[in-house]
Amino acid sequence: MMNPTASTCSACKRRDAFFHRPYSGQRLCKKCFTDSIEAKVRATIAKYDMLSFNDRIAVAVSGGKDSVSLLHILAKMEQARPKASFTAVTVDEGIRGYRDEALEIAAAECDKLSVAHYVVSFEKLFGFTLDDLIKRKRKSGDCKLTACAYCGILRRRALNVAAREVGANKIATGHTLDDEAQTILMNIFRGDLARLAKEKPVTDAVHPKLVRKIKPFCEIPEKESALYAYIKKVQFQASPCPYASEALRNDFRSMLNHMEEKHAGTMFTVFNSMERLRPALKEISITSHFTECVECGEPSSGGLCKVCELLKQVR
Amino acid sequence: MMNPTASTCSACKRRDAFFHRPYSGQRLCKKCFTDSIEAKVRATIAKYDMLSFNDRIAVAVSGGKDSVSLLHILAKMEQARPKASFTAVTVDEGIRGYRDEALEIAAAECDKLSVAHYVVSFEKLFGFTLDDLIKRKRKSGDCKLTACAYCGILRRRALNVAAREVGANKIATGHTLDDEAQTILMNIFRGDLARLAKEKPVTDAVHPKLVRKIKPFCEIPEKESALYAYIKKVQFQASPCPYASEALRNDFRSMLNHMEEKHAGTMFTVFNSMERLRPALKEISITSHFTECVECGEPSSGGLCKVCELLKQVR
Repeated sequence: MMNPTASTCSACKRRDAFFHRPYSGQRLCKKCFTDSIEAKVRATIAKYDMLSFNDRIAVAVSGGKDSVSLLHILAKMEQARPKASFTAVTVDEGIRGYRDEALEIAAAECDKLSVAHYVVSFEKLFGFTLDDLIKRKRKSGDCKLTACAYCGILRRRALNVAAREVGANKIATGHTLDDEAQTILMNIFRGDLARLAKEKPVTDAVHPKLVRKIKPFCEIPEKESALYAYIKKVQFQASPCPYASEALRNDFRSMLNHMEEKHAGTMFTVFNSMERLRPALKEISITSHFTECVECGEPSSGGLCKVCELLKQVR
Repeated sequence: MMNPTASTCSACKRRDAFFHRPYSGQRLCKKCFTDSIEAKVRATIAKYDMLSFNDRIAVAVSGGKDSVSLLHILAKMEQARPKASFTAVTVDEGIRGYRDEALEIAAAECDKLSVAHYVVSFEKLFGFTLDDLIKRKRKSGDCKLTACAYCGILRRRALNVAAREVGANKIATGHTLDDEAQTILMNIFRGDLARLAKEKPVTDAVHPKLVRKIKPFCEIPEKESALYAYIKKVQFQASPCPYASEALRNDFRSMLNHMEEKHAGTMFTVFNSMERLRPALKEISITSHFTECVECGEPSSGGLCKVCELLKQVR
């Protein structure tokens, strides 16, 4: 944001500029800024061929700024797609003092937009909350992964189950450009080329039980997603997850933020480098083969899925 | 390095350990450590097929720890390759209070090893020193690149010319694992996939006038190259280049050092990720076509080579 009197909006040339976009040089008023975000999301959906006219979309709504902003934009777009259906899905991991507030916000925003809201909880699906799991893991001294890594395994499953339960054939998530650039670096630093190939704006249809994911915000910087929510007076949960300080991602976030500060557009460059490498990644066919877990029947890349492996350790 | 009395060398099981290698868990004595470095260099040369029995090698010796250590190891190896020939080449960029000391060290180390030493200077080749160039550039307000970027353009040319002048068909450089991992990240952050594809342990034969480069230290961490020099009592210049603080590379160095500190082996992982992506990079054929510069006749990817472009600006 900038001094509002500094200049005129470079798009409408009428109103006062409110926001300076360093990587494009634009100075935008509030109206042209939010219009630009909505146009960018529509362009991203078209560019990656994310949606069909009759898709049944589950929007993953955590209650944070990105997912709530996405919900607002998709709800607005849906008016132009009368054959598409649309449900919000929230995963309740069971994180006391955090998720409860987010759940209320998600429910309130869905109500405001008249979008159906479906909640799936770790407790109901797996028999324990994330808090329980981490407590047990730490007590037994067998806490090999970060809380975020355990949560990720279970949340991906919960989201997929919930999407199927509401009859969706696509899951839309609020991952921003920042998330995508961080994930790219993380996978290079971990040498996880299979995941590097797999994580993309639209996931492949690898198994009929695995609902495809789309990321309409993948070219929206997180800062702009936050600003959109702020201008649109969208309600969102601002406090971070109590486990967030454990995330491996934090190092990559500060690394990228630092570089973005020095060279505006860095995150786009990292994201685009990866997109240009993508056809080549497909060539070396490192994507794993999916079957069904021998225990639970859910899609799995091994005999026993990661969720059942984890459940086995805990029980 | 560690408390020498802490344990016994995990290789010879006799002498006191002196060095702990975090990414392998080994604790090594001085002798087993230097042996391991020499074995690794031999293995790297074999793995990437870097040398033929009758190669005429120009070793790029800056006078820093990496290049002087490389010179020592290659000189030792050369005894087993009587048909290979071997010259040290130093580029004198003309950096007052820095390169002069390095030149003396390089000459003394070559003398010690009875290796012929050839010096090529920016002043002789281009008519000005790097100090001159940067002074002129800054005075004219036309200093768009960092000093390191200008130096890189001219140094690559100087090294190639020098290698041809001593009749070499390979240039060996002291680039370490750290350098390689930094370069990979830099190219991803710059979106320079052509360079990402090009920078590798052995460069392709793209033009008859462009001497191929090999990097026998590409799997040796910089820390270990320094320790090798220290144990072998190799003389090297320890003070950094006065322009080094300008290098873009610094951000990537601290980023990688930070991650290596947290997760031993990170640099190897980044390097190996790239090596696994390499066949795919070739597929998308982003390597540029080489012709000859219309001005100087040296290999160039455009009509006018970068060196002549730079010379034109300066003159």
